[in-house]
Amino acid sequence: MAGADTESENSFKDRQIELAHGAGGKASRRLVERLILPKLANPILSRLSDSAIIDFGGRPLAFTTDSFVVKPLEFPGGSIGSLAVNGTVNDLAVSGSRPVALLATLILEAGTSTDVVAQALDAMAKASAKAGVPVVGGDTKVVEHGKADGVYITTSGIGEPVSGVFLEGKSVCPGDKIILSGPVGDHGITVLLARGELDIEADLQSDSRSVWPFVEALLNTCGSDVRWMRDPTRGGVATSLNELAEDSGRDIVIEDRLIPVRDTVRGACEVLGLDVLHVANEGQFLAVVAAEAADKALAAIRRISGGEEAVIIGAVGDVGAEATGSRGRLTAITPYGSSRIVDMLVGDQLPRIC
Amino acid sequence: MAGADTESENSFKDRQIELAHGAGGKASRRLVERLILPKLANPILSRLSDSAIIDFGGRPLAFTTDSFVVKPLEFPGGSIGSLAVNGTVNDLAVSGSRPVALLATLILEAGTSTDVVAQALDAMAKASAKAGVPVVGGDTKVVEHGKADGVYITTSGIGEPVSGVFLEGKSVCPGDKIILSGPVGDHGITVLLARGELDIEADLQSDSRSVWPFVEALLNTCGSDVRWMRDPTRGGVATSLNELAEDSGRDIVIEDRLIPVRDTVRGACEVLGLDVLHVANEGQFLAVVAAEAADKALAAIRRISGGEEAVIIGAVGDVGAEATGSRGRLTAITPYGSSRIVDMLVGDQLPRIC
Repeated sequence: MAGADTESENSFKDRQIELAHGAGGKASRRLVERLILPKLANPILSRLSDSAIIDFGGRPLAFTTDSFVVKPLEFPGGSIGSLAVNGTVNDLAVSGSRPVALLATLILEAGTSTDVVAQALDAMAKASAKAGVPVVGGDTKVVEHGKADGVYITTSGIGEPVSGVFLEGKSVCPGDKIILSGPVGDHGITVLLARGELDIEADLQSDSRSVWPFVEALLNTCGSDVRWMRDPTRGGVATSLNELAEDSGRDIVIEDRLIPVRDTVRGACEVLGLDVLHVANEGQFLAVVAAEAADKALAAIRRISGGEEAVIIGAVGDVGAEATGSRGRLTAITPYGSSRIVDMLVGDQLPRIC
Repeated sequence: MAGADTESENSFKDRQIELAHGAGGKASRRLVERLILPKLANPILSRLSDSAIIDFGGRPLAFTTDSFVVKPLEFPGGSIGSLAVNGTVNDLAVSGSRPVALLATLILEAGTSTDVVAQALDAMAKASAKAGVPVVGGDTKVVEHGKADGVYITTSGIGEPVSGVFLEGKSVCPGDKIILSGPVGDHGITVLLARGELDIEADLQSDSRSVWPFVEALLNTCGSDVRWMRDPTRGGVATSLNELAEDSGRDIVIEDRLIPVRDTVRGACEVLGLDVLHVANEGQFLAVVAAEAADKALAAIRRISGGEEAVIIGAVGDVGAEATGSRGRLTAITPYGSSRIVDMLVGDQLPRIC
């Protein structure tokens, strides 16, 4: 009977799907944990990492997929095509795996101009060539006019886990350093401004890129001293680090002044009332590294072109101590020395940014 | 200069996307061959098989993906959830690979009832359990109300190619027999009737199921005597066998009277003016087997529950002899002894059946 109560407390109570369920924050996690996982449950799925690591004939294999519904289809610095390639490449990379191959499906809306589809394909081809990961197959479906928004792309990818690296929230230790690969918020704010609904102009580009070159350098240099990685896309840095706090049971402490944010992004966030830590990124990653390896790790990332702005933004703290048991929290030290609890993204402040 | 002319002749001239581009027939093939392949070209993609076979650390791996946009979401004998699982399992199976694991993404329309999503997930879970292939990860996106049609599902899968089996259109030889696993047209007609737009009632169910048990028995029994397989989904048996004729350069000859068709399906096709060979199937497959192994092959499939209706429907003929060079064609011998050329599906007679 107690079991039944627990089940009802943890069941998915929202009666219909809202945009917030796709925004990557709390509502998304509720949808996944309370509706999807209980139905499809198996040990690998329940790990909820960026890639599933499965046994393929005695050899580990990373396997991941993402759908892309970004609006608009093109924006400064990227497009749905580059996002679809880089997004899946990055999910493999932050699972500690060398990306090997991709597949892509297109859901096209009848009436969409061939040029729009061609541009998406060109962007995929360019990103695929740049990342060095081929698109080896796919599928195309067409739905009636009005039943999609031009083009939706789903990519899936397989990768080879780098041997000797085991990434898991549970593996982080007090004192481990948190590395961020570069400035945050560029992608989310760029897409938001590209919609043209706001009267803000800014010289800003999406950060969409493959993070594998940086991850490869990091893993080659630090190996098993790298404990955890994540690409802070939907829901931003705050959501990724809250997930780390939850999975590890440890407090995570970062310092606002250490987090690189471009002036234009900071300005747009102030005007729009957004916390930049909730804004999406598509070409950055977070890594937790053993304290003694942190300087070496940072140097390895910075040596790769495009990684010069990588920084240490905080550290893993002690076991959390909420009344309900040990539950970690994300805390940011403000520039004034006070501290604030930073929650996951709540609601749907930025729908369809990827 | 000659190169430029050829390129322009083979370029994709349709100015916008139409439903026909997603129907699996000629327009789909034109979209893939003239727009998608030239942009993403690489040796594996250009093979255009149901699964890409790639080298994964010295071991072959089958990798495939499909999007599902079937309308309505539920129909007698299946739903978008069972289709999404079985469709990808079957693409692996007919590439001669044991299905190992699946991923799934959902694109949800805001405002969709949670019950609808739960039903899709339940159907996926049931099909996944029945096929013995787990869903090990996924992704969820939400688009605004009106920008999708409830639920779109994309699945991708990996499989282990059965050793010693090499399936390719080019491998078929004159005299090889063509096996069909069971009655055709059930899925397409079921979905069409389930839309309720036609005033026809019929006691009919989709054939959606995993074909792996039959394929496994066939490969275990006949090994390398199996030359080619395909699941005749969009575009039906006619489209799959036309592709075989094209890829092999050989004429393919089948006999109408040998093809199992339920009375209700035949009746609906007559009323609607459809050739049942163009109607989609979701739980059948075609196999080309060496003549001397054909009886053994048929017996192996028939021994598995659900395979009792498997039949030999024709044979591979000689090299085609059109004026333009050797180009194979699909010919059906009618019940009256005359023969007719059966082309690929043209147009979009049955959009969104998967």
